Amino acid sequence: MRAEWKDFVDGKWTGEINVRDFIQKNYLPYDGDDSFLAEATQNTKDLWEQVLDLSRQEREAGGVLDMDTKVVSTIVSHGPGYLNKDKETIVGFQTDKPFKRSMQPYGGIRMAEKACTDNGYEVDPEISEFFSVHRKTHNAGCFDAYNDDMRACRSSHVITGLPDAYGRGRIIGDYRRIALYGIDRLIEDKLAQKDSTGRVMTDDVIRLREEISEQIVALKEIKQMAASYGCDISGPSANVQQAIQATYFGYLAAVKEQNGAAMSLGRTSTFLDIYAERDLAEGTFTEEQIQEFFDHFIMKLRLIKFARTPEYNSLFSGDPVWVTESLAGIGIDGRHMVTRSTFRFLHTLTTLGAAPEPNLTVLWSTRLPDNFKRYCAKMSILTSSIQYENDDLMRVTHGDDYAIACCVSSMRVGKEMQFFGARANLAKCMLYALNGGIDEKTKKQVGPKYRKYEGEVLEYDKVTDCLYDMMEWLADVYVNTLNVIHYMHDKYCYERAQMALHDRDVKRYFATGIAGLSVVADSLSAIKYATVKPIRDEDGIIVDFETTGDFPKYGNDDDRVDSIAHDLVSKFMTMIRRHHTYRDGFPTMSVLTITSNVVYGKATGNTPDGRKAGQPFAPGANPMHGRDTHGAVASLSSVSKLPFEDSQDGISNTFTIIPGALGKEDIIFSGDLEMDLSK
Amino acid sequence: MRAEWKDFVDGKWTGEINVRDFIQKNYLPYDGDDSFLAEATQNTKDLWEQVLDLSRQEREAGGVLDMDTKVVSTIVSHGPGYLNKDKETIVGFQTDKPFKRSMQPYGGIRMAEKACTDNGYEVDPEISEFFSVHRKTHNAGCFDAYNDDMRACRSSHVITGLPDAYGRGRIIGDYRRIALYGIDRLIEDKLAQKDSTGRVMTDDVIRLREEISEQIVALKEIKQMAASYGCDISGPSANVQQAIQATYFGYLAAVKEQNGAAMSLGRTSTFLDIYAERDLAEGTFTEEQIQEFFDHFIMKLRLIKFARTPEYNSLFSGDPVWVTESLAGIGIDGRHMVTRSTFRFLHTLTTLGAAPEPNLTVLWSTRLPDNFKRYCAKMSILTSSIQYENDDLMRVTHGDDYAIACCVSSMRVGKEMQFFGARANLAKCMLYALNGGIDEKTKKQVGPKYRKYEGEVLEYDKVTDCLYDMMEWLADVYVNTLNVIHYMHDKYCYERAQMALHDRDVKRYFATGIAGLSVVADSLSAIKYATVKPIRDEDGIIVDFETTGDFPKYGNDDDRVDSIAHDLVSKFMTMIRRHHTYRDGFPTMSVLTITSNVVYGKATGNTPDGRKAGQPFAPGANPMHGRDTHGAVASLSSVSKLPFEDSQDGISNTFTIIPGALGKEDIIFSGDLEMDLSK
Repeated sequence: MRAEWKDFVDGKWTGEINVRDFIQKNYLPYDGDDSFLAEATQNTKDLWEQVLDLSRQEREAGGVLDMDTKVVSTIVSHGPGYLNKDKETIVGFQTDKPFKRSMQPYGGIRMAEKACTDNGYEVDPEISEFFSVHRKTHNAGCFDAYNDDMRACRSSHVITGLPDAYGRGRIIGDYRRIALYGIDRLIEDKLAQKDSTGRVMTDDVIRLREEISEQIVALKEIKQMAASYGCDISGPSANVQQAIQATYFGYLAAVKEQNGAAMSLGRTSTFLDIYAERDLAEGTFTEEQIQEFFDHFIMKLRLIKFARTPEYNSLFSGDPVWVTESLAGIGIDGRHMVTRSTFRFLHTLTTLGAAPEPNLTVLWSTRLPDNFKRYCAKMSILTSSIQYENDDLMRVTHGDDYAIACCVSSMRVGKEMQFFGARANLAKCMLYALNGGIDEKTKKQVGPKYRKYEGEVLEYDKVTDCLYDMMEWLADVYVNTLNVIHYMHDKYCYERAQMALHDRDVKRYFATGIAGLSVVADSLSAIKYATVKPIRDEDGIIVDFETTGDFPKYGNDDDRVDSIAHDLVSKFMTMIRRHHTYRDGFPTMSVLTITSNVVYGKATGNTPDGRKAGQPFAPGANPMHGRDTHGAVASLSSVSKLPFEDSQDGISNTFTIIPGALGKEDIIFSGDLEMDLSK
Repeated sequence: MRAEWKDFVDGKWTGEINVRDFIQKNYLPYDGDDSFLAEATQNTKDLWEQVLDLSRQEREAGGVLDMDTKVVSTIVSHGPGYLNKDKETIVGFQTDKPFKRSMQPYGGIRMAEKACTDNGYEVDPEISEFFSVHRKTHNAGCFDAYNDDMRACRSSHVITGLPDAYGRGRIIGDYRRIALYGIDRLIEDKLAQKDSTGRVMTDDVIRLREEISEQIVALKEIKQMAASYGCDISGPSANVQQAIQATYFGYLAAVKEQNGAAMSLGRTSTFLDIYAERDLAEGTFTEEQIQEFFDHFIMKLRLIKFARTPEYNSLFSGDPVWVTESLAGIGIDGRHMVTRSTFRFLHTLTTLGAAPEPNLTVLWSTRLPDNFKRYCAKMSILTSSIQYENDDLMRVTHGDDYAIACCVSSMRVGKEMQFFGARANLAKCMLYALNGGIDEKTKKQVGPKYRKYEGEVLEYDKVTDCLYDMMEWLADVYVNTLNVIHYMHDKYCYERAQMALHDRDVKRYFATGIAGLSVVADSLSAIKYATVKPIRDEDGIIVDFETTGDFPKYGNDDDRVDSIAHDLVSKFMTMIRRHHTYRDGFPTMSVLTITSNVVYGKATGNTPDGRKAGQPFAPGANPMHGRDTHGAVASLSSVSKLPFEDSQDGISNTFTIIPGALGKEDIIFSGDLEMDLSK
């Protein structure tokens, strides 16, 4: 046993890289309440005041305070940066000072240039030239390989939000490994991995060997970056401060290299708590000190910033980083995983105040301890800043060391990752089905030249026939577009730091997604249960609908339409599964447009459910706004009927509870919640 | 028919890219003698004087006159360069002036840096940093993927000369296509090719699509480069001057992008002759003018220069470019392919004087016209500057539009290319076989830990048993090393300009090679027919041999040993064929160390044939120097017994004929010849 591991319970984790085993052998479930928590220290208050002041300056400057235009960001591209070196207990910024956004052109030079010009900066012309001529980017690679179909689908927005001009994100490095093992041991492990690949140099083996080599370089650079802050992370961390710092350095390396659509943290609180408990027991630190470490850690996470364009911010409704930390949950041995540090994480919403980042996500179970449930409720009421997800559901497939990437994508930390795939617009696909592949807005032939729907009234069986054919086509183009994107991302923008903190053989989820589910479900319901007449323009293209009579609407616990929604999810997932996926990616799907439903709606014409052209879709798997008229439980019940096995990447329901919604005055939850509620 | 194609005979070539069809339909075999040839013009003499003067300056400056240290070479990186714009009829240099060597770091930044520093220049530090941090090179990629075995074999030189630190070369773009079709038509063709790939985006399809996209960019850049010289190559060439110029621009693009081990020109003379004949017939140009075009073309080819290191120059015994032009040969319809322009090419050895570049290679057949044979003999006697290869042999597999890359690698122009693989040292492998994989010089375990040879006398059957096992191991490591190299070359140093002048689906020869064939053959003969006692050092490693008695030696037409050489070639090729090859490369082998046999010998200990440690091997398939005591015919006969079907990449024999060698005073050939003489 290493000296730094003093008092830890031995296990498989000492002989192999196995953080979960370490956690399970060593963590202490906490059943108590929040009374032990300490207030913010004066240093914390001072630093946070400084942050608020810089934030004010940033807003006044129009959204960006400073940007790199000459130095391309790498793990070691910048010297150390501080808010106030004397007061910070956890250090590290993406560049050499806070609020200065780094330049990351590997994903695409034009995107990097635009992020600068849109904010009043100019990328150094030599950098622009170099990344145009000599150093190809992910974006350039994608467009070199796309075919006409892919370009057309992208332009018409029947497939939208593809990560071909921005980082795919959705990869969570097991940043805890650095704290538990130190960089040197991790390098040893990677060398052994490299030695363990096949001798026959197939393309796959060569790619893997090169990737592991890149990972080793990244590990060395993380150590070098830490050293520039005066921290030696060659060996294991010796106390909770070091453990938080080492974990953070790992995460920092990731965000220095990748401007991903979601750069999540993982599941660190129970892990870090083991160090906190030891330090408390040994009198190394007081509760006040430990809370300060967590406060400073969270402060750093809140200051992760990227250079982004207005288009990106409009797609994502803001400038999210998705620094998701997954808290609590239940272990597969039946013990809950709430610790004092779970409280400490949530407590930062008090010490530093409410904030959307990091995205504190409680892995909810009916079996979580009452005191913790109560504390969650209290903090949700106070801050509206907690996300809840269904651990009872996800634990079945993922065990007890998974975490959420972005908002609902679950993956086992260090063992699984995701090829993020944005989403297909199912509502638009339905219109293509009726119009023989012609786009209802541009009048261009985008889909295949199938027969147009010809009747004067839409008949359910005929429409679904057309729809399923068009969905088959869409699934084909969609999956193959993603194959190109992920091939090129690996080639030109590989996540070497994050993958350095993964096992050799990771499971890769090949994540697809759909938008407009409730629009299509309600449309088909209208066609089936009411009378829908298509209205055609002078070219014979259906551009509107006249609907007579009432019809069941998704969101009212009515099986007549809920079953349609269910079947749409199942069918599209089956169609997705038919296709070759890059690197044997395991196909999944999500119903998950939490933020971009507005953009998708804008790109879609009138739909048979009565939704007008340009109107937003409902977010994620939500019923369309105002159509769920039978109360919250009925609405939630409809959503919960969607098949999780066919939408394993998550089903989101954005749900606001006001007093009385659940029929009682005793409010349990309040605020904007994104819940994974599928059964 | 395009206006530029006036008077040409129609054929398949007008509807598709098919240069061979154009040649076959339009060329005029020439049976006459050299009396029609014109002398050098005054302009040619002036320009050549200028070249000689610059060459003198270059020698005086220590071998390099000027080098780029800041501008990375691309097709369009430099403005136009001239010797004397008013006198040059064919224009274009690799940089903006003659004798200035370009910087090409894609293959490896350290090699590029070393090529500079060894010549007293310094690469711009920003370039060095960029190519170390952001733009990975072929060399870096190889070393990331190599395993320990590969590194060990590379260090011990049991595999040597691998193109992992320099460009692989051995790809001949069909530069004639630019002249015949013009860039715009070639781009159209490439767009159609891109549209013709599979819709399922497997890795192979994605790679191909990206490559075609890169090829299209290259074509556009070639046009742009030509325009900078005032030449419009969008459409077909209208006369011989334009045709030569367009062909040369294609070649120039290749050498601006690639510092390859052999950058060969192809088979252009018969093609260009069609234009020359038309121009002569129409009175567009005189013979004197046409010869001037060829002279200026050849002058340009002689001035192709690369930035190279002393190590490279020592491996290749000089600084060769291998601008090989394949001349003559017989068409598969039985007509010989000698034209007036074939004479014009060889005539440059008179107008400009003898020179090793371009490497003028006559595809020899017994059926070539007498006048041409006589002219070849005359020019060989005068200049010692002609290479001869066996067309009667190669035409069987390659047809009549193949060309030689480097010295003996034959490939159909625009349809086939080669993954160059340097060679395995078979003599060293034999010593490994005796010493259980331990290197005789370093005493390191390089090969597998097989049992050492234990007897006091070497017994033939036991030794060959050991040898074949060790050859199996060597073939495995060797092929897999090449798999890595070619994967990385495609990834980091793809030949987009050259491949733009190929068909979509090319045949890729996976070329391996062996060195030390005659050493091993004679050694095994000594073991079989004489008595060879191994001498061991204090560690039990065999370091020398004591040979008693005489034995048959390869090179004397003695089947007892010639059959051993034959079997070695066959067996190693069979072993090579057992392995997975990158991109389904078609495995071939060569016996071909024309220049590097000295280096291979240096790296190899004492051998049972009596060769002492460090002594050079015989070049290529040559008998060991001085051992072929039965005359030239017997020596050639031994070489000719090697199986071409197992050594399709070529068998070379370096052969100097002095008066009397063939038993007559009437000298037919003289000079250093490299001949493909296998049966």
